[in-house]
Amino acid sequence: MAAGHPRFPPKDPDFEARGRAGFARQTLMQTLGAEIGLVEPGHVEIVMPFAPHILQQHGFVHAGAISAIVDTACGFAAVTLMPKAVGVLTTEFKINLMSPGTGERFIAVGTVIRPGNKLTVTLGECFAETGGKRKLIAMMTASMMLVDTPGIVD
Amino acid sequence: MAAGHPRFPPKDPDFEARGRAGFARQTLMQTLGAEIGLVEPGHVEIVMPFAPHILQQHGFVHAGAISAIVDTACGFAAVTLMPKAVGVLTTEFKINLMSPGTGERFIAVGTVIRPGNKLTVTLGECFAETGGKRKLIAMMTASMMLVDTPGIVD
Amino acid sequence: MAAGHPRFPPKDPDFEARGRAGFARQTLMQTLGAEIGLVEPGHVEIVMPFAPHILQQHGFVHAGAISAIVDTACGFAAVTLMPKAVGVLTTEFKINLMSPGTGERFIAVGTVIRPGNKLTVTLGECFAETGGKRKLIAMMTASMMLVDTPGIVD
Amino acid sequence: MAAGHPRFPPKDPDFEARGRAGFARQTLMQTLGAEIGLVEPGHVEIVMPFAPHILQQHGFVHAGAISAIVDTACGFAAVTLMPKAVGVLTTEFKINLMSPGTGERFIAVGTVIRPGNKLTVTLGECFAETGGKRKLIAMMTASMMLVDTPGIVD
Repeated sequence: MAAGHPRFPPKDPDFEARGRAGFARQTLMQTLGAEIGLVEPGHVEIVMPFAPHILQQHGFVHAGAISAIVDTACGFAAVTLMPKAVGVLTTEFKINLMSPGTGERFIAVGTVIRPGNKLTVTLGECFAETGGKRKLIAMMTASMMLVDTPGIVD
Repeated sequence: MAAGHPRFPPKDPDFEARGRAGFARQTLMQTLGAEIGLVEPGHVEIVMPFAPHILQQHGFVHAGAISAIVDTACGFAAVTLMPKAVGVLTTEFKINLMSPGTGERFIAVGTVIRPGNKLTVTLGECFAETGGKRKLIAMMTASMMLVDTPGIVD
Repeated sequence: MAAGHPRFPPKDPDFEARGRAGFARQTLMQTLGAEIGLVEPGHVEIVMPFAPHILQQHGFVHAGAISAIVDTACGFAAVTLMPKAVGVLTTEFKINLMSPGTGERFIAVGTVIRPGNKLTVTLGECFAETGGKRKLIAMMTASMMLVDTPGIVD
Repeated sequence: MAAGHPRFPPKDPDFEARGRAGFARQTLMQTLGAEIGLVEPGHVEIVMPFAPHILQQHGFVHAGAISAIVDTACGFAAVTLMPKAVGVLTTEFKINLMSPGTGERFIAVGTVIRPGNKLTVTLGECFAETGGKRKLIAMMTASMMLVDTPGIVD
């Protein structure tokens, strides 16, 4: 997605290490069984296998688990474009859940659409993968606010 | 909230048992440590204590965990107004995260604003409770689509 | 609505005059036939009569016209809490359109839920009025960013 | 945008004439000075020149006017994939306004991401054009509900 959109240069050459280290500190991601995949400037992927502990009442993966990995992909996509010692907090997101959460694993993709000095706007997608085929099941837009409070960075 | 809004009568007198049973099947809620509280027609509360396994990288409760309980409260608020053998799926939600997720526990409140034959629109709120005081930290609007597919109800 | 929410004190005693003057400069509101009603701290109402020049293809008031007045009510609700020489820009909003835009006139109500130093979060509602009865037809959540750039205030 | 996404075949060969006729009945679009451009299956563009009657208080094009054309582009993108005698109503949209509304004209692009039997999900973008250069200033996600009520189609 986001083909025609500009690519943004990172301000911190250590963006990848910083993004991966931040992800590793997100205990919710470990709880959900999610792992970080591709980390590029303005683009991050998170992978979460289908698992029995993350479901809703019909046996689908819970919308909250899908939202959590897409929000995380969007957040770290924003982090990759931040200078050192600047982190982000999600101020809002909206997700459209287009198909139930069935599949072998779920790939959340976060892409920065517009980096900003105060707010960074991102687009998130979630694909369900089954037998090697991917289906787009959710789409998110999210705003990330820059924070440089000591202790609240990355 | 939702003071001036009409109250809606339940179509199924067993709405409370049905809502609680549906919640009990949501394994994600158990994973997060969340429990269901008040269940009234068009109004459901979910409580989640602060816990080390649901955090983001700064030590706050992850936006995804907050979203999950508010979405769940909104979904079951919609379920309480459904006839028997009709359930709901979230088609979209949007959440504004107004303060970081700090506190002893988090109370998600879902309220039906407009029940419908195809879509039910809900308002969700999340309060962080510390020392008995509550602070509104997030607000959600969510659409729930009715589903009456056998096997996909409640 | 917003019953249980705190009331916020204005920082500028001239908030009402400032809000009304800002509204008067919004040419889109004149084009739509909208007028400003109640202006209180953190709370603003806009009224727009049904009119043949603001419709969509089925003869209902266009979702864009509804959105415009609710966004405006939310924006000026935020403005009433700003200090002098500080204005706002909408950074995002989401609207749920719960019933078609039919009625004699439309009352948009904007309420500040959380004022902030960077972002102010608001809740908007739109009521359709027919024969003196009001029906809630739309609900919005919107984020307003503070701007103090000379020339871009109020 | 939306590269990588599947293209959807129209169910009605007269989709273009139907879309243009529906647009022509939207009096709000005439009021705003907007015209319909490209109409392809699942893809519609609307163009609106900068004009003094559609502004907010700082002299920018009002967020409500931007939202109206993007919502319209998304709605007609959905209409192009509908069978005869089926129309759409917007049930919700969310827009991120990334830059103020300055420029010579504004191009709204609506793209269907997932067509459905009940809901169609769309992605909308708005570009501001100045001196032949385009800048992405807003991004929308919107849900369109199918309606086949006689008198409420297209």
